[in-house]
Order: sequence, then structure tokens, then C-alpha cells
Amino acid sequence: MDNFAALSGGILRNIVATKSSAENPPSAKPPAKPQARSSLFVGSTEKAFQVLEAFNGQHRHMSMAEIARNAELDRSATQRLVYTLEKLGYLRRIPDSLRYGLSSKVLRLSYHYLRSSDLIERASPYLLDISRSLGETANLHELDGHEVVFLARFPGRHLVNIDFAVGYRLPAVFTASGRAILSKLDDAQRRAVIAATPLRPVTADTETDPQVLLSLVQEAAHKGYSLAMNQTMAGDIAVAAAITDDQGLPVGAINVSVPTTRWTVEKAQDQLVAHVLLAATSISKSR
Amino acid sequence: MDNFAALSGGILRNIVATKSSAENPPSAKPPAKPQARSSLFVGSTEKAFQVLEAFNGQHRHMSMAEIARNAELDRSATQRLVYTLEKLGYLRRIPDSLRYGLSSKVLRLSYHYLRSSDLIERASPYLLDISRSLGETANLHELDGHEVVFLARFPGRHLVNIDFAVGYRLPAVFTASGRAILSKLDDAQRRAVIAATPLRPVTADTETDPQVLLSLVQEAAHKGYSLAMNQTMAGDIAVAAAITDDQGLPVGAINVSVPTTRWTVEKAQDQLVAHVLLAATSISKSR
Repeated sequence: MDNFAALSGGILRNIVATKSSAENPPSAKPPAKPQARSSLFVGSTEKAFQVLEAFNGQHRHMSMAEIARNAELDRSATQRLVYTLEKLGYLRRIPDSLRYGLSSKVLRLSYHYLRSSDLIERASPYLLDISRSLGETANLHELDGHEVVFLARFPGRHLVNIDFAVGYRLPAVFTASGRAILSKLDDAQRRAVIAATPLRPVTADTETDPQVLLSLVQEAAHKGYSLAMNQTMAGDIAVAAAITDDQGLPVGAINVSVPTTRWTVEKAQDQLVAHVLLAATSISKSR
Repeated sequence: MDNFAALSGGILRNIVATKSSAENPPSAKPPAKPQARSSLFVGSTEKAFQVLEAFNGQHRHMSMAEIARNAELDRSATQRLVYTLEKLGYLRRIPDSLRYGLSSKVLRLSYHYLRSSDLIERASPYLLDISRSLGETANLHELDGHEVVFLARFPGRHLVNIDFAVGYRLPAVFTASGRAILSKLDDAQRRAVIAATPLRPVTADTETDPQVLLSLVQEAAHKGYSLAMNQTMAGDIAVAAAITDDQGLPVGAINVSVPTTRWTVEKAQDQLVAHVLLAATSISKSR
């Protein structure tokens, strides 16, 4: 891992930070403990987030014992932190029960994050335009460690299900957006992200061979875009291009996601690639 | 405030919890310190959230000194918590600077909260239907203390600006949704929420007289819906109705929000009230 020492910049710092949790499945577990504990590190803060992150969808309302188990904390620490987080308003007691759930106060931080994002502000008009002119869903992603995070989603006119995608994470190398972002990084950085990724397939078609994944990123670098089918959702074709800063470094990616019921790879290449490339280039220049 | 002792249920607990921060402007400040400190209360957890909440939109990227000032913490505590939150991935160092910002990891908690919300799941089909059939924006709100929180927003076809409303808060008594929710609470509870609200006008037309606000809630109770014009945004008419549980207690509200450029109060009463009432009733029964 010594090659990390020579690297710099925000994304890389995140990759380094992620290395320590490479053995954890994405989004499922509290953060792994930092390897070198500085005296500056406040352990109880980490535990507080382990408690909050234990409420992860599969676990919506939990008793104290369930929280302790899922947060991997002892009963005493759990009791103190649940008490504190309830007092602060981030957890709430479910009426007429001994169980707890997240409260709407957790939305404050995401609200502030999304509101303050330059990238969302710059990309939104282009994403809206794509979503309207094509009638398909356009997404904005950011790299965080070895994952891409959904920052915004503009549903097309075929919208059937409502989903709240913002904040959702996927292993970057499994996604068109992630491969497009990685294509703007150098070889060592690409390999570092692949090495940090738990290579468990998401669908029956997810490509998990590190060498093949690296070659798909290289292909994206060559073509300027990336296309992925059935990699993180069966029946989905995604076409993505990276958004870059003034030094050519990636700050995110946009994709258009279409269903295989109405689209083929050939049709996506013919009709989507030009839109996505133009939008990504325009957003990159819009700063 | 002794009448609180007789009250029960989630919303009331929140109202009680909010009382201590009544002097703070909504959404602007870290939570006020709980009045009675239990030995269970972990003070550093509160400080960690003071640091995160200091990044509140006006303050996007901050130096250590700015964080300390806005979080109202000393330099030493700030340094330890910023270090810890950066290690945990919730804050990130802005490249080539000594400033920090929120990282996309804060989106995880909101993602889990929104995904786990029964109310959103139940209300979404009705909100989507309203937004499509009327071509106007439909919103879902929840009461938290003296504020309503946006849980979901379905933009109508006239959408011009992109906004990320989820997580946004407004004083409940200033909004049609908040008045509709309060109309399902008893008189003491209504008064408690009004007493907890900092009565600073949001627009030139915001009603801030506590007696008038109480009578507007009473009117909503009588009519079954609430209509507000220009109260939190100039040029906006909102019509709202409460969603209730099996005991008739409010769990949230839906509203339809329309611009005064295309709508009048009379037209809103004629054409929106029936939709909003039907949807609210259907969602209430859908559990």
C-alpha cells in the first residue's frame, strides 16, 4: 500500500480511508476502526455513529439489545449513546414500545450537504434537460472511497416506482458512472479502488474479475464514456461519462439509466452516448 | 408546563423536547443543551453534532476557527471532533486548503431514514397521482417539535427550478401542513407548539399573532383542511390535510403548493381541497 503515500487529492484520500474497511460489505456496517488511533480521536463519537448506522433499512426499529448487537457495542455504551441520541433528537422512541428508530432530524445534515453541493447545482439543469428530452432517468454520482453515491436523480416520464435514491451507494467498479470516474484516474488509483472493493456480485451478471474490471475502466478511458448492462440491477442499461475539474480530475459522473424492456445496447450507444457526453462536457466547463 | 406530564405519544415528546430550544431560530443552531444532564448523557456526542450542524448552508467550507465559532465550541474540542469526524468520513478536508466540508457519507442516514419510512411508502402513490393529475407540486410533511419537515416532494409539470426540499424545516404554525397537523391535536398541545415557536415572520405576510395562529388551527379542525397564502414563500398558496393513525392522531400532512401567478384562493378551494382531502383520507386508511 506504499504507493498511496505518493497520491494526493480528495478522492484519493477517500480511497485510502476506505482501504481499512475493504472487508466490509458496502453500506452495511459501521465504519471500521481507524488503524492508528491518535489521541485526538474521540472514540465515543465513533460509537454514536455506529448506533445511528445500525438503523440501516433492514433494521428500522430496534430494542436496546438489537441496537447493541447490530452496532457491535456493549450494553452499557449502547444505553448511554441511545439515551444521548434520543435527547439530541436523532433517535426517537417508538410510542408504546421499547424500540427506537431514526428521527427526521437526520435529514438536516443531508439537506445541508445537498444544498451546499456545487456539483448538484451545476449538473441539475443538464440532468433535467436529459431526463425531459429523452424521457428517461438521469442520475448524478460522486465517488466516495470505492463506492459511488447517488447525489441526484431525475426520473423520466416512464416513472413507475417512487424511489429515494439519494444517498444510495454501489461499488464504483460495478457501475457505469464509477468506471467513467475511474477512467479519469491513473492506473495505480484504478487498481487501488478495485483492490478496496468487496468483489461480491450484485446481480447474476455482475463482473467481479479484477482484471476484467480494470480493462473495462481502460475501455472507458479510451472511449470517453462507459456502458454497463445488468451489473447492479437486472434489466438496466446505464451510459455514463465523467465530470472533471480544471485539472482533468473527476468530480463525479452523470448517467442515463434505461430498461432493457425498451432499450438495447445498440440503441443506447446510438441515442444516449452523445447526450451524456455533451452534458458531462458542459457541466465540466460550467464552473 | 405541567400539562405536558399528562400527554403521551411521539409528537408530544418532541414538543416537550423542543421547548428547551424555543429561543433558537429554526434549523439555524445546534440543539440547546438538555436541561437535566443525566450521567448517561455523552457530552462529546452532542459536540460532534454541533460541529456537523455548523455546516448549515451559509457555512459550506470552514476553517477550524470558523467551525469552532459556529459550533460554539473551544478550539481544543473542535480540533478533536473535526479530526474524528474526518477519520470517520463525515467531514472532508477541502483539497489544497485548511478548510473542511460535509462529505457524502452524511447522506447515508437520511437514505436509511427515508427508506424506512412507512409514511412515505404509503403516501407516495397518492402524492404522485395528485402531482400528475393536477400538474402541481405535492408535498409530504411530518411534525418534529414545533417544525414541519419535508419528507417528500413530487414536482408538477410546471417545474422550473430544481430544489432539494427533503429535510427542509419550517415553523409548523406558519404552514398549511403544520396547521392541519395541529388541528388533530388538543388545545393544550396546539398552544404548546405555538409557545415553542420563535414567532419571527418569514415573509411580509407571515401571521405571527399567537391568538390568530391558534384560531387558524381551530379553523383547520373545523373544515378538515388548511389553506395558507404567502406565509412561508411569497406567491405561494398551499392547501393541506392531515394524515392520521388509527387513533385519529396526526402522523403527517400532505399539501399541494401552487403559485399565485396561476391560482387564486377561490380556485384553490374549488379545485384542490377535494383532492387533498381524498388523498389524506386514503393514506390514513391505507395502513
